[in-house]
Amino acid sequence: MALRELLRVPVGRPVDLSSYDTSAAAPSSGGPADKAAGVRATALMEPALAGLQERLYAASTAGDHRRLLLVLQGMDTSGKGGTIKHVIGCLNPAGCRVRSFKAPTAEERAHPFLWRIRRALPVPGEIGIFDRSHYEDVLVARVRELAPRRDIDRRYGQINRFEKSLADEGVTVVKVFLHLSYEEQRKRLLARLDDPEKHWKFDPGDIDERALWPAYRQAYEIALERCSTEEAPWYVVPADRKWYRNWAISALLLEHLRALDPQYPEGDFDVAECRKRLLAE
Amino acid sequence: MALRELLRVPVGRPVDLSSYDTSAAAPSSGGPADKAAGVRATALMEPALAGLQERLYAASTAGDHRRLLLVLQGMDTSGKGGTIKHVIGCLNPAGCRVRSFKAPTAEERAHPFLWRIRRALPVPGEIGIFDRSHYEDVLVARVRELAPRRDIDRRYGQINRFEKSLADEGVTVVKVFLHLSYEEQRKRLLARLDDPEKHWKFDPGDIDERALWPAYRQAYEIALERCSTEEAPWYVVPADRKWYRNWAISALLLEHLRALDPQYPEGDFDVAECRKRLLAE
Repeated sequence: MALRELLRVPVGRPVDLSSYDTSAAAPSSGGPADKAAGVRATALMEPALAGLQERLYAASTAGDHRRLLLVLQGMDTSGKGGTIKHVIGCLNPAGCRVRSFKAPTAEERAHPFLWRIRRALPVPGEIGIFDRSHYEDVLVARVRELAPRRDIDRRYGQINRFEKSLADEGVTVVKVFLHLSYEEQRKRLLARLDDPEKHWKFDPGDIDERALWPAYRQAYEIALERCSTEEAPWYVVPADRKWYRNWAISALLLEHLRALDPQYPEGDFDVAECRKRLLAE
Repeated sequence: MALRELLRVPVGRPVDLSSYDTSAAAPSSGGPADKAAGVRATALMEPALAGLQERLYAASTAGDHRRLLLVLQGMDTSGKGGTIKHVIGCLNPAGCRVRSFKAPTAEERAHPFLWRIRRALPVPGEIGIFDRSHYEDVLVARVRELAPRRDIDRRYGQINRFEKSLADEGVTVVKVFLHLSYEEQRKRLLARLDDPEKHWKFDPGDIDERALWPAYRQAYEIALERCSTEEAPWYVVPADRKWYRNWAISALLLEHLRALDPQYPEGDFDVAECRKRLLAE
C-alpha cells in the first residue's frame, strides 16, 4: 500500500490524534524497520527525487503549469526545519521556493489572512515549501483567541476553497502534520537548553505554549477534520524519530511526483541543422 | 593571497577580458592542481560553509541585519545553474533565496529596471542568489538595443548607487562573472544537442547570440569596469572547468562569510530555571 494511503487523514471523518502513532512502530507504518534501514532507504530515494524535480521544472518551460506545495505544520521542535534541511536539502535549490511564516507583520495583518500566502506560492515547475502556513490562522489564532471565534470558524471554508483553486491551477498540495509526542518535545527542548549553539532556537515562551498542549491538539484535530479534502488531503507523519520523519516525507514527495509523471519536453528544432550551424561558426 | 584578492576586478581601471584566463591553469589561479584535488577541496569546505550559514541565520534572529547576495552572470552555458545546483545545493535551503531573472514580464517592464530586483533581495540572515540580475539591463539591453543608449549609460550609476545602498543596509554583494571561452560554449551547446533530456535547455536562438559574442564581451567589459566598486566588487571566475568554478565560488563564499564572522546570539533567559520548568511539567 502506498504511504500516502496509510498516512492520509480520511475526508469528512472525526479526527482523534491519540489514535495516531507518534513513534512509527515499524510494522504498522509500512516503513523501514530501524534507523540504519531508514537512513539507507531515504538516501536511495534522492536520485529519483532529483530526477523528477528536474523533469517537473523542464516541463514548465514548455507550458506545463504543474507544481507542488509541501505544507509543514507541527508543534515546536516537531521537525519542520529539520525536514527542510535534510529532505529539501537534497533537491536543486533553483527549483525550490521555501517560505517560513512567522507571526504576521503589521502589513500582513492589514490584509486578509491568505494574502501573504498567495504571494509565497510556487510558480509552475517549482516545489514550494511552507514552514508553517495559513493553518496558523486556525491554530495559534484559535488557541490564543487572536480573532473572534466566528471569523476563525469561517476560515476553514475559506482555506478549502483556496486550496481547491490551487488544485485547479495545477498545484499539488501536500499537507503534512508532524505528529510529535509531549514527552519527545520535552526532550528536544531540554537538548536545546543543553547546547549554547542552540539557544537561539529556544524561547522560554515555548514552555508556556506547552501548557496549552491539549488546546493545540484540539485545534489540530479540528483543522485536520475540516480541511482534509479530496483536493488537498492532510497526512499525519509520526515525528518522534527524525529518521522516520525524513523517510516518510521523502516517500510522500516521491509518490506525488511519480503520480504527476512530468516529462522532458521535446525540442521543436532541427537537431542536425543546429549542430551544423554550431560547428560552422 | 585570498582568492577574492586574486579574482577581484580592480576599481576604476579598464577591463580587458582577454587578459583573464577562462581555464584556470592551476599555479597562477592559486587553486587546486587538478579535478580530483578540486572536488576534494570543495567538499572539504562544505561543513564550514554550512556552519557559517547557520550562524548568519541565527544572528539575524537577534537583530543582526547582515546577509549576503551572490550575483551570477555569464554567457549561456557558463554554469550559473550548475553553480546553484552544486554549490548552493550544499547549504540549508531554509536560509537561501534563489531567484532567476528571465526577460522581464509586461508588469516588470512597466516599472524601473531595479523594481523587480528590490523585490527579490535576501532578508537579514539569508544568502540570496541571483541567476542573472539587474546587469542584464546593461548587457543584453545594450547589445540588443532594448533601450535608448543614453538610458543604458545612466544605468551604471544607478546600479552603483543601488548596490552602495545595499551595502549600507548590511548586504555583502558578491558579483561573479563566469568567464567562459567561445570554444567551451560550443562544446556545451553541442552536448545539449546530443542529449534529448537536455533539449529543454537548448534554444536555437542561443546560436544567434553567439554571433554577437564580441558585442557581449564588450558589454561585460564596460559593466565590470564601471560597476566594480569598493562596496560591491566584481569577481572574474574562470568557468571552462566546472570543478574549478565550483571550487572558486565555494572559496569566495567562504572567505566572505568568514570576514562577516557571524555569531550565535546568547540566550537572554535563565537556563537552569527553564530546565526546571520543563522537567516539572
